[in-house]
Amino acid sequence: MLRPGGMEAGRDRDRIVNLSDGVFAIAITLLVLDIRVPDIPESMVAKELPAALISLWPKYLGYFLSFVGIAVFWTIHHSIFRPVRSYDRTLLYLNFLFLMVVAFVPFPTSLLGEYGDHQLPVAIYAATLGVGRLLLTAIHWYSTRRDDQLLEEAQDPATVRFFLIRGLTIPAIFLLSIVISFFSVGAAVWTWFVMIAIDAVVVHRRFR
Amino acid sequence: MLRPGGMEAGRDRDRIVNLSDGVFAIAITLLVLDIRVPDIPESMVAKELPAALISLWPKYLGYFLSFVGIAVFWTIHHSIFRPVRSYDRTLLYLNFLFLMVVAFVPFPTSLLGEYGDHQLPVAIYAATLGVGRLLLTAIHWYSTRRDDQLLEEAQDPATVRFFLIRGLTIPAIFLLSIVISFFSVGAAVWTWFVMIAIDAVVVHRRFR
Amino acid sequence: MLRPGGMEAGRDRDRIVNLSDGVFAIAITLLVLDIRVPDIPESMVAKELPAALISLWPKYLGYFLSFVGIAVFWTIHHSIFRPVRSYDRTLLYLNFLFLMVVAFVPFPTSLLGEYGDHQLPVAIYAATLGVGRLLLTAIHWYSTRRDDQLLEEAQDPATVRFFLIRGLTIPAIFLLSIVISFFSVGAAVWTWFVMIAIDAVVVHRRFR
Amino acid sequence: MLRPGGMEAGRDRDRIVNLSDGVFAIAITLLVLDIRVPDIPESMVAKELPAALISLWPKYLGYFLSFVGIAVFWTIHHSIFRPVRSYDRTLLYLNFLFLMVVAFVPFPTSLLGEYGDHQLPVAIYAATLGVGRLLLTAIHWYSTRRDDQLLEEAQDPATVRFFLIRGLTIPAIFLLSIVISFFSVGAAVWTWFVMIAIDAVVVHRRFR
Repeated sequence: MLRPGGMEAGRDRDRIVNLSDGVFAIAITLLVLDIRVPDIPESMVAKELPAALISLWPKYLGYFLSFVGIAVFWTIHHSIFRPVRSYDRTLLYLNFLFLMVVAFVPFPTSLLGEYGDHQLPVAIYAATLGVGRLLLTAIHWYSTRRDDQLLEEAQDPATVRFFLIRGLTIPAIFLLSIVISFFSVGAAVWTWFVMIAIDAVVVHRRFR
Repeated sequence: MLRPGGMEAGRDRDRIVNLSDGVFAIAITLLVLDIRVPDIPESMVAKELPAALISLWPKYLGYFLSFVGIAVFWTIHHSIFRPVRSYDRTLLYLNFLFLMVVAFVPFPTSLLGEYGDHQLPVAIYAATLGVGRLLLTAIHWYSTRRDDQLLEEAQDPATVRFFLIRGLTIPAIFLLSIVISFFSVGAAVWTWFVMIAIDAVVVHRRFR
Repeated sequence: MLRPGGMEAGRDRDRIVNLSDGVFAIAITLLVLDIRVPDIPESMVAKELPAALISLWPKYLGYFLSFVGIAVFWTIHHSIFRPVRSYDRTLLYLNFLFLMVVAFVPFPTSLLGEYGDHQLPVAIYAATLGVGRLLLTAIHWYSTRRDDQLLEEAQDPATVRFFLIRGLTIPAIFLLSIVISFFSVGAAVWTWFVMIAIDAVVVHRRFR
Repeated sequence: MLRPGGMEAGRDRDRIVNLSDGVFAIAITLLVLDIRVPDIPESMVAKELPAALISLWPKYLGYFLSFVGIAVFWTIHHSIFRPVRSYDRTLLYLNFLFLMVVAFVPFPTSLLGEYGDHQLPVAIYAATLGVGRLLLTAIHWYSTRRDDQLLEEAQDPATVRFFLIRGLTIPAIFLLSIVISFFSVGAAVWTWFVMIAIDAVVVHRRFR
């Protein structure tokens, strides 16, 4: 039986990881359902289809953004769970909270694809991904704090600190993008792209 | 070949668990499809979107409740199957019956999100989750009764009894909430939240 | 590289089984999407919802039938692949053909739920499940015919013959039910239930 | 932590493969959602359903084509990842890009099923599958170029060259089919079938 605070090992960890991967895979694949084929009368197709498909561009953007977002989440989740050997109820609950956000992503994505030039959908999208990232940071922080019980071996403190700072900066930038969205919706969306690029450069430099 | 009453081991158990985890992951992720982006003419979006999104609250509540419900089911399923080493047809059939309920959850959730202030949807929702919980109890009871054949080692009788009582009390409370729903729909929904909270406290105390 | 006729082992088999289990889990869970919450104006809900939910019974029946059908397919697929240790292109292609049918099941199910009192949907449903069952028989037959290369050990010939006969009888009964459906749609559906019951008894007797 | 250029092994590879298989399984199973049951008034069903179902043939064709396409992708992905023992960020990113195309396939399939007799949908479909195939070739090429770090053992150079040529020819034929589609949409679709058949023969001859 699963005991609160009790430690479980090996195969148990695998089942948590498998369930998480299932949610990742489904959330990432459901995104496409939001891109609907335009409805055009047969006689107008040749003339109107190109423009109709181009006008779906906010949907393609949403697909791309959320795919990248969930892929980044998966990569970080993968890194965090690599050294995990056992788990307790807190880790399990934090992971479920995180998965609740991942599985929710298709809704703000759909909202962004429909009303992406308005402030509220942009803010909701930033808030969803920011909270998801924050929960990942919480899972990481919790697992390293109890590393003697949860992890295979203690992690390098400098690396842990680096990932903690990174894991707090990203949600802070999402928060900043919400503030920016009140002034310019387009600028807020650009903030995310700049953030992804800078993050990639920083991580690359750190581990050269 | 799979023989009725015959025992199978190891990897076979893993395939049952993998299929179950697949159903859990998909059911949990499909829930979001029920939260539909409101359809608002472009000129009214800025004005009407906030209220339209707020009016979706029964959908968010349904998403939250069913996500928590399925997550709790997964956690218990995980505990039950941890010591399982082999299985027979009865265990397989019970598990499929249980998965049939898990995969069905999106429908009562959708019903609750649409007509959550009416008695019937609340009763159907409680009945679905109550039956799901009862089937989990049946799986647990059956596996411990044939522990010499199905489990790695005999389980502690006091713990088995505790989980049997818990596994019968929760469905009983769901049944009670159906009775309550005839008098007050809101009170019935609150019963579920109180039940989740008390259950968490009881389990925590038991395994301190 | 995968060679036609070439043999691959262990982990490879697991990836085929994992992909198959993914398709099983998703097909089984998508079925619920076909049961749509009825659309009733708020003032009429209390009065009309019960009848509206009852009138959905062909949808519940379709959910139940297809869930059982796919669960039985999974159980047989599981039995067939248990002794499989390596595979060749023919086995891979047969399995993909079978998965194509499994993934298709939600469509005839939806057709049956919508127009279940008409002959054509009943015939299409029977044809789909009959072809699926026939492909399972083909997979089984092929794997036992090349047992020295594909299986861990040669299978008991009497058992192989029993499963071959069973695996041809079920499609034959589905074919028969198509013939019956021209005379009575209801009788054709009942044929399936009788078939499931008799099959369970026969398998049980055989392996007592 | 995942380091750029850093090597990770064993179980890590399995998690990438599992996530990929999840996306394959879901994309392949979602295809059926595009085949919608026709909406016919009860009194006309017997008369109109057969013709309505037959008129869905472009949907069935799309289902078949995309199922085969994704199945072929899976088979090649499976071959490419069989010798992979560790991975770096480039391989991870290339794989995610590829999965982004696989998860996108239901949209061009739906477009083809709706407007399959027009040039644009046929071109978009060919472009999607061509790009997907090209990304698989890129993954293969990258993994063999760094075989000392990523693979279990160096691959046979002649076989690598054969697969590289094949992996560039298929996208080239998809490109050619786009050119053809400007002259004849039907001929472009036939190009794909001829390509699948010739590819099967060539692979079969090569590994006889």
